[in-house]
Amino acid sequence: MSSVFELTILGCSSATPTAKRNTTAQLLEVAGRFFLIDCGEATQIQLRRAHIRYQRIDRIFISHLHGDHYLGLMGLLSSFHLLGRKNALHIYCPPGLQEIIELQMKYSESEFQYEIFWYQHQFKHPQLIFADDYVTVETIPLNHRIPCCGFIFREKQRPFTIDKTAIEAHGISLAQIQYIKQGEDGVLANGTRIANKVLTKGRPQPRSYAFCSDTRFSEQVAEWVKGVDLLYHEATFMHDMLERAKATRHSTAKEAGMVARMAGVGKLLIGHYSVRYLDLSLLADEAKKEFAETEVVVELQAYQIPEKRRV
Amino acid sequence: MSSVFELTILGCSSATPTAKRNTTAQLLEVAGRFFLIDCGEATQIQLRRAHIRYQRIDRIFISHLHGDHYLGLMGLLSSFHLLGRKNALHIYCPPGLQEIIELQMKYSESEFQYEIFWYQHQFKHPQLIFADDYVTVETIPLNHRIPCCGFIFREKQRPFTIDKTAIEAHGISLAQIQYIKQGEDGVLANGTRIANKVLTKGRPQPRSYAFCSDTRFSEQVAEWVKGVDLLYHEATFMHDMLERAKATRHSTAKEAGMVARMAGVGKLLIGHYSVRYLDLSLLADEAKKEFAETEVVVELQAYQIPEKRRV
Repeated sequence: MSSVFELTILGCSSATPTAKRNTTAQLLEVAGRFFLIDCGEATQIQLRRAHIRYQRIDRIFISHLHGDHYLGLMGLLSSFHLLGRKNALHIYCPPGLQEIIELQMKYSESEFQYEIFWYQHQFKHPQLIFADDYVTVETIPLNHRIPCCGFIFREKQRPFTIDKTAIEAHGISLAQIQYIKQGEDGVLANGTRIANKVLTKGRPQPRSYAFCSDTRFSEQVAEWVKGVDLLYHEATFMHDMLERAKATRHSTAKEAGMVARMAGVGKLLIGHYSVRYLDLSLLADEAKKEFAETEVVVELQAYQIPEKRRV
Repeated sequence: MSSVFELTILGCSSATPTAKRNTTAQLLEVAGRFFLIDCGEATQIQLRRAHIRYQRIDRIFISHLHGDHYLGLMGLLSSFHLLGRKNALHIYCPPGLQEIIELQMKYSESEFQYEIFWYQHQFKHPQLIFADDYVTVETIPLNHRIPCCGFIFREKQRPFTIDKTAIEAHGISLAQIQYIKQGEDGVLANGTRIANKVLTKGRPQPRSYAFCSDTRFSEQVAEWVKGVDLLYHEATFMHDMLERAKATRHSTAKEAGMVARMAGVGKLLIGHYSVRYLDLSLLADEAKKEFAETEVVVELQAYQIPEKRRV
């Protein structure tokens, strides 16, 4: 299984696209899975530009029903169909999106050859919406003009990697291996304990990514994303436009930095900036005063979290 | 009033966009009016790339409800609103589109600051759907999988341009000028007739553009577009894929050329080509065997019909 944990930014403009910036969409590769997060207009075009084989996307997560976060979905679903998709697709979204898509399908008199499973968010509490052997996805309620949530993607804790040479050298019985994989020490026939770290190559430290779509600054959100390795937080405005940020239920770059600092994350990415900002370094500088490890996202760029092994 | 008659191609890919080709949308400037014809995904981005001040669009014409012809509409309408539009917008479309847009507005809890007037096509007969002092727009029923129509945009016949110097030199009375503008000769007090062409600078010959969206080859369509100056006709496939064209209710490049020849148009533009064609000159060559004045459209390129004066 791939150990890549990589976020590709497909769009990072707020509200309206420009000739050079697209509306929100991101692709997260984790544990060999491809998750699409939001799907603004022209996402399928951006996926092609990023050279992503987009039929590999099996799960799509939509934060809320403002057009700049989902208007590319119908086109993407149609292209999946036209390009021969047969694999089921899972869509996690606010109530209403299924109705919108099905109405469009009705008038185009089309049916897709693949099945879509729909899962509707509730917005009151954080919610585990997906889990398999490798990954979990939780929602976190955000504070926006309409029901909106963010998502936290976490790798599950993987077992310790057995060091075969060490196992054989110490004469550890096969029966113990399942326990050693779970972190137990080995025990020899004479009762001697062999420390787990001697018998294994450690295990990968689970990585995590939190996506905070559109939201007013919120201490509660900082609490929910505590300790994630990578945080994307919207920064629609500079802090001199705080009143506008409050009125439109958005955040400033300074506030995004505050959330990152309060949450003690590994790294902060800011995006969803207003089209009024041409020099994005101003946004970065403002956020960095709160939290040094900040970067302004760039479209079609990929951000990796390297694997760390914990012994 | 501007005498520009210019078609700008915003998208010309069929079904799915690629990294370099967008789905159908065109902007027609005629008599100072800006008409948007179809509105595939990312049309608003293409309008920006074409440096078109898109708030000048007052009327939008949608041929049918396959996604590649209208999925950019909701984003464009939202951007109109976000960028401060106050002027009313008129949308001519198949039944269903208003419902789709209004459902999306409901879930985004948004209302636009400008008014939208909706006009629904019927698809049985050609229909005059718009007329003002300068331009008329008619639908023509096409033969596609779902209700679909093309549009013919025609300049109205303009009055003769008075030659003031000639009028004064011949001593024509002011009372006659309104008739001379309509093509009458001048008459002197002694009964002598002065030919209209002596007293005027002629009048512009009305220009016309027909847009044939998605359609099977049809002699009836050729009849309806007879004599237009500029014809856009879809050419999704080469003629060796005729069976596929029939099955999907599309046309081949050869058939597009046949329609142009039968209709005796001034010039043919072909587009809506399948993503399978990388060398578009093959499509052009096939159509040119039927109709020499053929061109394959290129995105963000503008096609003008120069003004001709008829004396």
